[in-house]
Amino acid sequence: MGKLEEILKDIRPIDQDLYRKAQERLDSLTKPKGSLGRLEELARRYAAITGTLLPRIARKHILLFAADHGVVEEGVSLYPREVTTQMVFNFLRGGAAINVLARQAGAEVVVVDVGVAFDFPEAPGLRRAKVAYGTENMVKGPAMSRQSAVAALEAGIQAAEAAVEQGADLLATGDMGIGNTTASSALLAAFSGLPAAVVTGKGTGIPDAIWRKKVLVIEQALRVNSPDPRDPIDVLSKVGGLEIAGIAGAALGGAFRRVPVILDGFISGAGGLVATRLQPLAGQYLFASHLSFEPGHKELLKLMNQKPLLNLDLRLGEGTGAALAMNLIEASVRILTEMATFEEAGVSQEVSG
Amino acid sequence: MGKLEEILKDIRPIDQDLYRKAQERLDSLTKPKGSLGRLEELARRYAAITGTLLPRIARKHILLFAADHGVVEEGVSLYPREVTTQMVFNFLRGGAAINVLARQAGAEVVVVDVGVAFDFPEAPGLRRAKVAYGTENMVKGPAMSRQSAVAALEAGIQAAEAAVEQGADLLATGDMGIGNTTASSALLAAFSGLPAAVVTGKGTGIPDAIWRKKVLVIEQALRVNSPDPRDPIDVLSKVGGLEIAGIAGAALGGAFRRVPVILDGFISGAGGLVATRLQPLAGQYLFASHLSFEPGHKELLKLMNQKPLLNLDLRLGEGTGAALAMNLIEASVRILTEMATFEEAGVSQEVSG
Repeated sequence: MGKLEEILKDIRPIDQDLYRKAQERLDSLTKPKGSLGRLEELARRYAAITGTLLPRIARKHILLFAADHGVVEEGVSLYPREVTTQMVFNFLRGGAAINVLARQAGAEVVVVDVGVAFDFPEAPGLRRAKVAYGTENMVKGPAMSRQSAVAALEAGIQAAEAAVEQGADLLATGDMGIGNTTASSALLAAFSGLPAAVVTGKGTGIPDAIWRKKVLVIEQALRVNSPDPRDPIDVLSKVGGLEIAGIAGAALGGAFRRVPVILDGFISGAGGLVATRLQPLAGQYLFASHLSFEPGHKELLKLMNQKPLLNLDLRLGEGTGAALAMNLIEASVRILTEMATFEEAGVSQEVSG
Repeated sequence: MGKLEEILKDIRPIDQDLYRKAQERLDSLTKPKGSLGRLEELARRYAAITGTLLPRIARKHILLFAADHGVVEEGVSLYPREVTTQMVFNFLRGGAAINVLARQAGAEVVVVDVGVAFDFPEAPGLRRAKVAYGTENMVKGPAMSRQSAVAALEAGIQAAEAAVEQGADLLATGDMGIGNTTASSALLAAFSGLPAAVVTGKGTGIPDAIWRKKVLVIEQALRVNSPDPRDPIDVLSKVGGLEIAGIAGAALGGAFRRVPVILDGFISGAGGLVATRLQPLAGQYLFASHLSFEPGHKELLKLMNQKPLLNLDLRLGEGTGAALAMNLIEASVRILTEMATFEEAGVSQEVSG
């Protein structure tokens, strides 16, 4: 049995008893019951995931999966393929948006090269786990072999496990890959049956003419490959991406190690969807950080039964929305563990209710 | 001319030239144009408010205004009036939700006693600026005199100015006052003309029977006092609260000193509404942190033409939503100042557009 199958079998539901106990504790704190709204839900779920009533977040890792896409040759993006490589160097030098937001959240960025069309030298902050030099053009056939898809999933699992072994108690996913909104929209269309035009957006900001071409490209890729929505690895390999597979693996690895995983936006969501199609219990370990400006993201979160925390019209990826949401999750955990109870503070409780 | 009139006269529009220059800089950074959505708007506005293209947030103050409400004797809250005093002690000891969230945001909490029915001894983190021992019962007559309303506004202005003099470059407002959702709903009904039942919520979580009484109390207060919506100080004094006046003053003080002010939820919003009715330009300096669970808040933000940053079903007050939003504003400013440009990073720009 391979690593992937083993982990899919071993993911367990979160601890319902701790979920209830966390709410009891929240209700004993000096605030009206339920008055911290969704923060209380975050705290309850964090406790139930990690199996401790008084958790502490000491180390946060953002796993940023990077890969190239063969479909870029169809002209679906404003940016040349080389930008994936150039941006990886930018991440490693600390100059990208995700570096800034990670510093603000007190998190470390680990770039995981699962499929960039460039050989990077060893570097601090880079995890080399290349499965291929990018995908094939999905308009002409499968984006990758089934074997490559499994290898990229396992690279994601291993990246998550390595982060946990280094002490990370909160994970987030991010993506870099010119062309990856095309793959994510194709993947969502394949799983949901929704028309390509409904789940396709303007990515980095393409004009209408390129958008129309992008929709046609996705329709063609689905026609050529006929992905089977009941077989998540079939969908992933035919119209997905290597970084999307890596993200799916990280989501599964986090669930397996009982560490919460924050999904960034549309691309990370596509990875999260693959993960929950492979093992629905993994969804209990995932947090949707924000609602992307990409129109497909709303449909995707609906399919996953996830409610995003932020709605700031972000459409950058890299893990930027997930980094912002880290502050909210950390805030919720600190509420659970640092606030005084009514008894400790000598505050009168409500008269009735 | 009093302090208040002087400041109302001296509030200026934010710097439109810097607003434009900040967007130019954002467009030169290694990300697709506009891809950080509302974060970019926050950064532009922060720059235009403070008058610097490369701002740095070094010190953050949360001004938490506390006061009691005579209307509590009508039985509109689940909690006894003493809880205002008890919670002030909880704030000063660091055990309340706002203390936890302020620590997480790296902010200091300053409790401003503008009208609690208790004499607090001097304490670190407490600003003593008491105008009265709570308001009168607005069902029987004006909540306070016009003179007291002006004094509480000026106490708020002075609290903001003191924070700025201590180096604060980001301010937030919060509130504590058993009964203050009743005052805020009354104030909103008076300014908007909306029916009390539309703008009245369940506060800390009152049952239906108390909610119906709360609506009747607000209707009666409006009938008894006939506040004039064209005269903001008339509305504030007749159906407002001392902490609401303090918050309005802090908003005006921040605008006068060109320091951004983050409003918390419904009560802070009521203060913000008074401030912008006194001087519409103050609105350019205000950020709405979150959309409260209180139904009136949506109407209130619409009146102020403000779009909230977070929507987490919070209904606690104290400044909790504002503390969470501080992280977003700080993140946006760091994006503006710390990211690499395309040129610096050697990343290819978009092919067209």
